[in-house]
Amino acid sequence: MPQSASTNRRIVLAARPHGEPTDADFRLETGDIPQPGQGEVLLRTVYLSLDPYMRGRMSDAPSYADPVQIGEPMVGGTVTRVHASNNPQFQVGEWVLAQTGWQDFAVSDGAGLLRLGANPENPSWSLGVLGMPGFTGYMGLLDIGQPKAGETVVVAAASGAVGAVVGQIAKIHGCRVVGIAGGPDKCRYVVEELGFDECVDHRQPDLPGRLAKAAPQGIDVYFENVGGAVFDAVLPLLNPRARIPVCGLISAYNATSQAEGPDRLGLLMRTILTKRLRMQGFIIFNEYAHRYGEFREAMQDLIKQGRIKYREDVVDGLENAPRGLIGLLKGENAGKRIVRVGPDEWSAT
Amino acid sequence: MPQSASTNRRIVLAARPHGEPTDADFRLETGDIPQPGQGEVLLRTVYLSLDPYMRGRMSDAPSYADPVQIGEPMVGGTVTRVHASNNPQFQVGEWVLAQTGWQDFAVSDGAGLLRLGANPENPSWSLGVLGMPGFTGYMGLLDIGQPKAGETVVVAAASGAVGAVVGQIAKIHGCRVVGIAGGPDKCRYVVEELGFDECVDHRQPDLPGRLAKAAPQGIDVYFENVGGAVFDAVLPLLNPRARIPVCGLISAYNATSQAEGPDRLGLLMRTILTKRLRMQGFIIFNEYAHRYGEFREAMQDLIKQGRIKYREDVVDGLENAPRGLIGLLKGENAGKRIVRVGPDEWSAT
Repeated sequence: MPQSASTNRRIVLAARPHGEPTDADFRLETGDIPQPGQGEVLLRTVYLSLDPYMRGRMSDAPSYADPVQIGEPMVGGTVTRVHASNNPQFQVGEWVLAQTGWQDFAVSDGAGLLRLGANPENPSWSLGVLGMPGFTGYMGLLDIGQPKAGETVVVAAASGAVGAVVGQIAKIHGCRVVGIAGGPDKCRYVVEELGFDECVDHRQPDLPGRLAKAAPQGIDVYFENVGGAVFDAVLPLLNPRARIPVCGLISAYNATSQAEGPDRLGLLMRTILTKRLRMQGFIIFNEYAHRYGEFREAMQDLIKQGRIKYREDVVDGLENAPRGLIGLLKGENAGKRIVRVGPDEWSAT
Repeated sequence: MPQSASTNRRIVLAARPHGEPTDADFRLETGDIPQPGQGEVLLRTVYLSLDPYMRGRMSDAPSYADPVQIGEPMVGGTVTRVHASNNPQFQVGEWVLAQTGWQDFAVSDGAGLLRLGANPENPSWSLGVLGMPGFTGYMGLLDIGQPKAGETVVVAAASGAVGAVVGQIAKIHGCRVVGIAGGPDKCRYVVEELGFDECVDHRQPDLPGRLAKAAPQGIDVYFENVGGAVFDAVLPLLNPRARIPVCGLISAYNATSQAEGPDRLGLLMRTILTKRLRMQGFIIFNEYAHRYGEFREAMQDLIKQGRIKYREDVVDGLENAPRGLIGLLKGENAGKRIVRVGPDEWSAT
């Protein structure tokens, strides 16, 4: 069932997953297309972003954002077009970056929308390299990581939407950059296409030994987005005064119990002290919303100059979004994963 | 055997302790008084500082500073007087802040010495409120903790040399200040003399519950100098964007094995992420040496204005320094612990 003008498809949270999400945790529903009221616009979804943080929204464990309620549509960033408008600021046909979630249509009063123009180049890039993931990598690296030329920067999920930006920006700043990724194809892409100095395949044995070899001068900035075994391998290699921006912990999102002992909390504290580390968590739009414009301009320039490369992994059809997210959490994506929900150009049917 | 002009007493590291240090880990030796060469001064120790970090120097585990070698004198900050001088910059009788360790006499070429003048008021305070511990509390709180008026600041070892400064400076900046200390006497001192809003006795049961009650708005700055059970109680109370300067982990210094599981390293990482915490380790003279003058001036002003109170706990005699350190690590001190090694005024014997 493709997008149509007669019904609004939405994917709602059917159940809270225990461990890895499954198809049964999602439900496709159909309903009437909502009507925009005075001052409102009706938005039609063209692209939906899939991102690791969505796993967190499916749980009701305390976090930085409220969970999705059972029976409510999954949340998510979207690139949409104005389908109908009762708001003079928005013209029918305009492209708009929104947060309308896993559905075909949604009404908005305009708050929080970013206008992308009538005919943007690569509108979906506003979900990736020019959107939340790119902003996360760029600002976390530069503002918290503060890389200096000659330092060594390590980032995991290196071929992903965030990691690819972290590594390329670090190269532009004169750093030695080591990526970590799963499998030879991703590693080849990271080195040959993105220009990292090295990439360590975490699916091969002895990650600690191979990472140590790839970072012979130790690690000055570790951009943390995965946690788990990668962090364990990084910890002993950190140099004094290393910086660790923490934007995600994808390896832990499906965890159902605490890891077995010994308890290394004290070890981490001692390492923070003796190496004088700085670790800082951040949620990009909570901490840095006021700098999004600055980021977008800088990143657009870098893309135009050919200094930043970007790759998308497109899932076709809203009905395939659940499997797309499940696979993303396993690392099966090659580049920024998005869902094509509807056509660029609308032809009423 | 008191200080004399005929021998140099020194306390050397006899063995590396396993767990709590004991008397047998130290040895008192006597030897000749060293002779200052060209451009050098001979310093006579009047006061020796005892500080928790010294436990770290007794171990050969990797740390931010080299360990004391077996048979070498224990390191430590000292307030000394110039006993003989072949250096025109130092006059006999002058008071000097030095790092000459656990001994009566030492030779220096002048590097790293701080002149305190011919007749300083409270010269020993340069080992405490005006020295390394005060500097640690002041700079860690203000530069890393960045407390804002109305926020809640928590500090453990609240009656100690660092904690007392942290809490009093936080009060001056308009914060709600909760101390943690061991026993009713220390807690009374912290509230009644130092002016903290509350003090929680960690020797009473249910530290987490009582700390939560004392910090009903949560914790915005936790100044970490003890670790262990206190940190465990603090962690769930931290507010979003809380700051955690880490200057010490006294509760762990005598630990001989890792704690039992579950492994909470991942829990700490998740908390850093979801609460967007900033944790930063620092070793005061490594990170902030260039700001010591600024600190000293500010702190001297606050003391003159009566806004900072300070208490010393004086151990008499170099031979009692080992027991003084052993007791300090158990928290038996009441205020900044120092050793009186020799008299203020020298009368050759």
